[in-house]
Amino acid sequence: MAKKVVTLGEIMLRLCTPGFDRFVQADSFDVIYGGGEANVAVSLSNYGFDAYYVTKLPKHEIGQAAVNALRRYGVHTDYIARGGDRVGIYFSETGASMRPSKVIYDRANSAIAEADVSDFDFDEIFKDAKWFHFSGITPAISKKGAEITKAAVKAAKKHGVTVSVDLNYRAKLWTPEEAQEVMRDLMQYVDVCIGNEEDASLCLGFTPKGLDVTKGKLDIKGYEVIFKEMMEEFGFKYVVSSLRESYSASDNGWSACIYDGKEFYHSKKYDVRIVDRVGGGDSFASGVICGLLDGKSTKDALEFGVAASALKHTIRGDFNMVTRAEVENLVGGDGSGRVQR
Amino acid sequence: MAKKVVTLGEIMLRLCTPGFDRFVQADSFDVIYGGGEANVAVSLSNYGFDAYYVTKLPKHEIGQAAVNALRRYGVHTDYIARGGDRVGIYFSETGASMRPSKVIYDRANSAIAEADVSDFDFDEIFKDAKWFHFSGITPAISKKGAEITKAAVKAAKKHGVTVSVDLNYRAKLWTPEEAQEVMRDLMQYVDVCIGNEEDASLCLGFTPKGLDVTKGKLDIKGYEVIFKEMMEEFGFKYVVSSLRESYSASDNGWSACIYDGKEFYHSKKYDVRIVDRVGGGDSFASGVICGLLDGKSTKDALEFGVAASALKHTIRGDFNMVTRAEVENLVGGDGSGRVQR
Amino acid sequence: MAKKVVTLGEIMLRLCTPGFDRFVQADSFDVIYGGGEANVAVSLSNYGFDAYYVTKLPKHEIGQAAVNALRRYGVHTDYIARGGDRVGIYFSETGASMRPSKVIYDRANSAIAEADVSDFDFDEIFKDAKWFHFSGITPAISKKGAEITKAAVKAAKKHGVTVSVDLNYRAKLWTPEEAQEVMRDLMQYVDVCIGNEEDASLCLGFTPKGLDVTKGKLDIKGYEVIFKEMMEEFGFKYVVSSLRESYSASDNGWSACIYDGKEFYHSKKYDVRIVDRVGGGDSFASGVICGLLDGKSTKDALEFGVAASALKHTIRGDFNMVTRAEVENLVGGDGSGRVQR
Amino acid sequence: MAKKVVTLGEIMLRLCTPGFDRFVQADSFDVIYGGGEANVAVSLSNYGFDAYYVTKLPKHEIGQAAVNALRRYGVHTDYIARGGDRVGIYFSETGASMRPSKVIYDRANSAIAEADVSDFDFDEIFKDAKWFHFSGITPAISKKGAEITKAAVKAAKKHGVTVSVDLNYRAKLWTPEEAQEVMRDLMQYVDVCIGNEEDASLCLGFTPKGLDVTKGKLDIKGYEVIFKEMMEEFGFKYVVSSLRESYSASDNGWSACIYDGKEFYHSKKYDVRIVDRVGGGDSFASGVICGLLDGKSTKDALEFGVAASALKHTIRGDFNMVTRAEVENLVGGDGSGRVQR
Amino acid sequence: MAKKVVTLGEIMLRLCTPGFDRFVQADSFDVIYGGGEANVAVSLSNYGFDAYYVTKLPKHEIGQAAVNALRRYGVHTDYIARGGDRVGIYFSETGASMRPSKVIYDRANSAIAEADVSDFDFDEIFKDAKWFHFSGITPAISKKGAEITKAAVKAAKKHGVTVSVDLNYRAKLWTPEEAQEVMRDLMQYVDVCIGNEEDASLCLGFTPKGLDVTKGKLDIKGYEVIFKEMMEEFGFKYVVSSLRESYSASDNGWSACIYDGKEFYHSKKYDVRIVDRVGGGDSFASGVICGLLDGKSTKDALEFGVAASALKHTIRGDFNMVTRAEVENLVGGDGSGRVQR
Amino acid sequence: MAKKVVTLGEIMLRLCTPGFDRFVQADSFDVIYGGGEANVAVSLSNYGFDAYYVTKLPKHEIGQAAVNALRRYGVHTDYIARGGDRVGIYFSETGASMRPSKVIYDRANSAIAEADVSDFDFDEIFKDAKWFHFSGITPAISKKGAEITKAAVKAAKKHGVTVSVDLNYRAKLWTPEEAQEVMRDLMQYVDVCIGNEEDASLCLGFTPKGLDVTKGKLDIKGYEVIFKEMMEEFGFKYVVSSLRESYSASDNGWSACIYDGKEFYHSKKYDVRIVDRVGGGDSFASGVICGLLDGKSTKDALEFGVAASALKHTIRGDFNMVTRAEVENLVGGDGSGRVQR
Repeated sequence: MAKKVVTLGEIMLRLCTPGFDRFVQADSFDVIYGGGEANVAVSLSNYGFDAYYVTKLPKHEIGQAAVNALRRYGVHTDYIARGGDRVGIYFSETGASMRPSKVIYDRANSAIAEADVSDFDFDEIFKDAKWFHFSGITPAISKKGAEITKAAVKAAKKHGVTVSVDLNYRAKLWTPEEAQEVMRDLMQYVDVCIGNEEDASLCLGFTPKGLDVTKGKLDIKGYEVIFKEMMEEFGFKYVVSSLRESYSASDNGWSACIYDGKEFYHSKKYDVRIVDRVGGGDSFASGVICGLLDGKSTKDALEFGVAASALKHTIRGDFNMVTRAEVENLVGGDGSGRVQR
Repeated sequence: MAKKVVTLGEIMLRLCTPGFDRFVQADSFDVIYGGGEANVAVSLSNYGFDAYYVTKLPKHEIGQAAVNALRRYGVHTDYIARGGDRVGIYFSETGASMRPSKVIYDRANSAIAEADVSDFDFDEIFKDAKWFHFSGITPAISKKGAEITKAAVKAAKKHGVTVSVDLNYRAKLWTPEEAQEVMRDLMQYVDVCIGNEEDASLCLGFTPKGLDVTKGKLDIKGYEVIFKEMMEEFGFKYVVSSLRESYSASDNGWSACIYDGKEFYHSKKYDVRIVDRVGGGDSFASGVICGLLDGKSTKDALEFGVAASALKHTIRGDFNMVTRAEVENLVGGDGSGRVQR
Repeated sequence: MAKKVVTLGEIMLRLCTPGFDRFVQADSFDVIYGGGEANVAVSLSNYGFDAYYVTKLPKHEIGQAAVNALRRYGVHTDYIARGGDRVGIYFSETGASMRPSKVIYDRANSAIAEADVSDFDFDEIFKDAKWFHFSGITPAISKKGAEITKAAVKAAKKHGVTVSVDLNYRAKLWTPEEAQEVMRDLMQYVDVCIGNEEDASLCLGFTPKGLDVTKGKLDIKGYEVIFKEMMEEFGFKYVVSSLRESYSASDNGWSACIYDGKEFYHSKKYDVRIVDRVGGGDSFASGVICGLLDGKSTKDALEFGVAASALKHTIRGDFNMVTRAEVENLVGGDGSGRVQR
Repeated sequence: MAKKVVTLGEIMLRLCTPGFDRFVQADSFDVIYGGGEANVAVSLSNYGFDAYYVTKLPKHEIGQAAVNALRRYGVHTDYIARGGDRVGIYFSETGASMRPSKVIYDRANSAIAEADVSDFDFDEIFKDAKWFHFSGITPAISKKGAEITKAAVKAAKKHGVTVSVDLNYRAKLWTPEEAQEVMRDLMQYVDVCIGNEEDASLCLGFTPKGLDVTKGKLDIKGYEVIFKEMMEEFGFKYVVSSLRESYSASDNGWSACIYDGKEFYHSKKYDVRIVDRVGGGDSFASGVICGLLDGKSTKDALEFGVAASALKHTIRGDFNMVTRAEVENLVGGDGSGRVQR
Repeated sequence: MAKKVVTLGEIMLRLCTPGFDRFVQADSFDVIYGGGEANVAVSLSNYGFDAYYVTKLPKHEIGQAAVNALRRYGVHTDYIARGGDRVGIYFSETGASMRPSKVIYDRANSAIAEADVSDFDFDEIFKDAKWFHFSGITPAISKKGAEITKAAVKAAKKHGVTVSVDLNYRAKLWTPEEAQEVMRDLMQYVDVCIGNEEDASLCLGFTPKGLDVTKGKLDIKGYEVIFKEMMEEFGFKYVVSSLRESYSASDNGWSACIYDGKEFYHSKKYDVRIVDRVGGGDSFASGVICGLLDGKSTKDALEFGVAASALKHTIRGDFNMVTRAEVENLVGGDGSGRVQR
Repeated sequence: MAKKVVTLGEIMLRLCTPGFDRFVQADSFDVIYGGGEANVAVSLSNYGFDAYYVTKLPKHEIGQAAVNALRRYGVHTDYIARGGDRVGIYFSETGASMRPSKVIYDRANSAIAEADVSDFDFDEIFKDAKWFHFSGITPAISKKGAEITKAAVKAAKKHGVTVSVDLNYRAKLWTPEEAQEVMRDLMQYVDVCIGNEEDASLCLGFTPKGLDVTKGKLDIKGYEVIFKEMMEEFGFKYVVSSLRESYSASDNGWSACIYDGKEFYHSKKYDVRIVDRVGGGDSFASGVICGLLDGKSTKDALEFGVAASALKHTIRGDFNMVTRAEVENLVGGDGSGRVQR
């Protein structure tokens, strides 16, 4: 019997220009459904967990297509409320070399942003669940979103469910002040805190020392300091972050670090040639969650997460279409890319 | 020097499934920009007029792509205000046989729906203009839309511009009561009233007798009666309607009628095999406007309009990509479809 | 709580040339997963039933993609055994006018053809089930297929499940003699027998009188006679057939008839412009099953089935992507194909 | 050992808009290589003859791609001279309903139009050949083209090869006066003369009586009269014509007639739903040639030709991708379009 | 009121194989319209100038599509003469790694190559213009092309318009001797001379010392020497060149240098991963022109130009689809390629 | 008169996901026909040899499409037997960065695997032939395949034909023991033995010392030792191997080495950015064969082979679409990737 895991958030319709085309060149859009926590649900389903996704989607066919995208990869959609007017949309174009990828959001007034706590029976949802994952996006999309998130984490805790958060600060959705007011309160329910240096700063008021993000240079020592401070203040069991070095839109360095209250680990670093970096952070969170649920050591859970998310960068779409075996193979050291026959 | 014509309305991003695919099957959407009055502007530009389109569009690239779609076909975009958050969207799938085409709207809070009268300098816009065309959709999208439309028709009249309306009732946007309150008031500025039997009934309170729309049977006598009554009440110079007989989603009968205060004409009827019927009505309005601007007789203007719009049904997208010569050729009787080398 | 329905069979990888291209022209194939009973499962899931599909599929990604195609549309895949070497394949090209559609099978040695009765726990499968549907294809693919089918119908009966069969004779898979030996034995478990005139003749030894299939002329009286004889001999509760008149590869007449032991009904006839006729029969079976499960009258169940399957002909792929509401709308008489906004 | 047949002409690069898109909408062109006599060569290769195609093509990759298109379908390209600057091009868009298909030629100065008689060793080419086919296009493209054609027919006759011509008048290439001067001279070498009523009139100075082509009405009696007169004057062994009734760009009536000096036959008529009508006439010529080479009766050769070309209308591209068996099947009466499994 | 800028040249139909496919593999071509000076016009329009493009194009739809491609991006097409037979064509395939991109030209006898000086009213064209840009391609395509170019530069000078040239030597169009005869004469009207080392040598008779182009090694000192000599002889105000280091077809080094009579600058160098390098030089010229028109310093204009053109290499098609803000951002140092949300 | 060369093997239908999509994401497959020895035949045809390919293919259209794929590129298909049930299939997805490309085989029971020696007239096939090439795949697919291979090499030797083998061990098809039993016996007929270090070890029982394949490190000295030992034991005239260094799925190092009994050469090494590495080894074999057939020196033949195959990595599909001139250009040192106009 697979373990039940729950994620909550907004799944959006991503309209993606083909290849490297710019928005103004596009005569068609690739249709992709994705969103932070939905991406985590799909990954966890791929790894063999019974993943349940909680959101609200309109009854019309675009809403149905979002449901179908989740079902296709085995995510349980029983807890998705149906109603509201629209599926949140974002447009994306894929960058190359020194031209960055670009995202235009059109997500206001989506069904989940206008949903109500009463749309969800969290006692039913968290019954027998082992893990709950949410991100800083859902409480940011609307006041209702923040209320639903609060209700969810409280119910999760009540049912003894482990809670993880991906801080994921979104400047288009709220100010740091607004974010900190909501997010700091939610942290009391969180066991595993995931986020990069910017998110931590903007959502929780922490600033990494000695890091100049725009220069792509990361001081690993700084992370260790912050992680310890964060754990002290919020009582997290784990603090985790991916570490991206943006050499260009085409090539990134990718590693991660974790602190479990005892040891601080910095993972192996991968140099990735990027196919689609959207969902990279989500695939990292999923990998770490998988590792911890499996009872791996802190270090091994981290390495599983970073390998899983390195692979994600080579896959089109938000979802990380990899199996455990593929991740383990990369963790084991085979990054040679030789053909698998 | 080509005649200046002006249209006002909302251009939307149409996301269209490929071929006959249903929404839930789509892995890509064709990207089409269109909307009632924009379609008219493009047709009039194709016919050689200096067509100006008035709307408001966001500054981001999706807004820019809408501007570009108009410029591509020669429409002047100088009067388009830039600002606001979003481009209205509609999703469409193309029906076949007894399966109807389907449209899902996601247009609330678009830039034009939230625009202000002050965004437009109507004195500048109607300077030297010969014709102004609007539809019943723009006043329906929002209170602001209704105000802008009112300001536009008043300014058009002040500048001696001929005004045409396509009634185009949209049940998703307002009730008949709301429609009639706004639209009846606007009719005092209208010279040419275009609309099918349903629109007239719902927007203006007229009901054709002896017509059972769902059965696809139209009593042409009924139209004559109504048209005369409408002219009496509102003082229109012309009352016009296309007449669609929906045999199926693949095949329609297509004709039109007009009343000019003296004579009532029923055009030739075309049986059309449909490629894309969206924009059919707009192409009809454009053809009639072109005919009247050219000084054709009432009957000839009608035949030009109905031939133009019959051709539209064979063309993918909202815009009617035909030349005057092609329309005249069909009016002249060559519907044999023999290859043009 | 939705009713549980079960279907058993082979889901195949259909490699379909784009548009109307011939096999020798194809530079890509559309990837579609489908198969008689899988198509029925998807339809029943679309109608709101808890549909379970039983088959065996390889563990590799092509097998997984077949599982995903079912999950996408809500079919439960818990009872699908995983193993074996290959997914059965068929290549298809879509005909037009007097050029027929063409199918090339490459299905030998598929996982389900080489599966064993022990791969399936039919007591678990039929627990709480209301309906079981199979076709004459599964027992034809291999001796193992026949054994599994036999085990399934026996278990279904044991659990009081209603059993329907679609006779579906396949000349490439067995001779009439072989078919009749197996199929006549299975009929003792069948409540609802579905099949056209050819299938009945080849699978069960019945020959309709006065029917010349190649001429596309069907004598409805002949059907009534046969249906009564069939019911007498096999004790069916319902005998049902779709009636196809192939005017050409592009246009067909489509109706159906049913006999329930008391009355014989011939449905309304639809003239369909074909987008993809593969799966037409399966969508008819699904519609009739839905109607009977819903407790509709014999006539209404038939009309639901024939309307559902008329719509299927307008949809690409094996699966019938329609909702109950869309079918009911067509049953109610609106085949005008007017745009649904 | 298959019979050797030879055709001579220009193979062009056809740039075709996708689906029914108009030229101004196209963001990509389908790449098709074709041309009257090349189409005949491909058909004859498909029917099992050793078909040789004679032309001149540039050495660059576009020229090579044209060679490859022929080789792909088994046409021998040993006699194709390589050199010159360009491959002739034509742009095509596919019409629908009352919108005609449209072709824009860009063929001036192609390699074959600038080729020299010395580029070809006609004695080698016609050694052991049974049939030579050319059309009225090649002599029209340039003076050189006319010289090469003359040299070819003379050599063919010297080698005892049966010669057929498809008159194929092209108004963009020459005037009727120019055409008649060249073509009437060539007729002395021709055994089988193929062409519709317009071509005969413009190339050879004949006018069918009682035929109003634009109205799509053909008086079959008129053909009989003309054919007899033509045979008397030029000594043809067969005079043949396809008979197209253009109901619209989507639907045509298609039949043919032949006179062999004794009997005049009018074939069965097919109503065709058109996928691509380009190459329809060539596929008819090919079918008749195949029939005569096979030693069929006059009537049977005609029926083979008209069935073959009816099928061509359902196939994308210039080439007729059908087998003998498929043609014979349609001749035999099965136009029901039932799926071939 | 935006500044009026004018460019003159040939816009061609570029038929581009999809992805990295070779010509002989292509079943479709991407349709792109572009050409040196048209590319400059589009860039200048993108930067907010009133860009006018001068050429001649056929009246048919392929000519119209070229006009539309320019209008789509805001270029004024009022001065485009319509007539002539053909749009020049070039076929392109995109290289990778050590396989170079390949171009096949089919441009002879295009409408602009056969145009006459009388087709253009240069006094009207240069009225109120601030800048005129042309290249060494237009005078090379035909004698008429050279005459038109001469007439244009003379008229530009008469109207006090700043003139820039991109030397752009094309070996397929003329010999160095022919080029130098025409180009040296035109230089008297030129203020800004743009071109790489080869172009300068072949068009104007200069040879950079110490440069071995095939090895991809550029001696920046050599450029300084040549630029000073060029300025002395021709009286240019600026001499400019991009500097490409071809590591492979996939990766290039890209920088530029400029001399303004006082200082010689070598820009920042970018290492670019190439999506499409066609139009790279044109985007560089456009950027420098933009910078100079804006009144930037010599160095800043150069950096704007090289950043703009580095970005161009990441964009499919001839046109550089970037905004000023995007260029400035890269000039400002953010080449990290981080996602822009 | 071109030299006749013969290859024997299995041509398969390769179903390839578009771009970098994973199997479970694919909604279409690119259709590619290829296979080791077919790829060699195409390359040799491209280089101007009269290449004959020997295999067996079904009579249906998928078999015909495989024949056509070969004919398209000039390969003679006269010796291909027609019959059997299926074309072998393999599914492929293209890796990127650390995600390897993946292949799923579905090739059992293909026509050639079930063919008989009597299907081929090897005396006719090898008449006047200069070279015969086969691989270790054909004897591995079935016992019949091994018999046919044995019959072929014996006949080749009888006719004085030079014989080359590409060892190509396939673990999915046989064990090392099975392989060695069959392959060691075949070596007595072989003149040129091609294969990488793994193939040699598994097929012939040799193990290179000091090579750790998974680490991508190759000790060139080890190759020299093995090659000399192999030549002693089997009497080969040449022993050849490509040397791949898999940095990742996107970037490989590529070189080769050869021993001719006197000298051992290690070629120039290329760093290749990969478009499609399938067929890389076959293109290397083809290049070496071409060089030896041309009478090049051992070293030059090797350099031709390695340059040809470096280029192959930049080309989609199994076939190496390059000309001699392109290969020679790269051998000559121009790997700068500058545009060829």
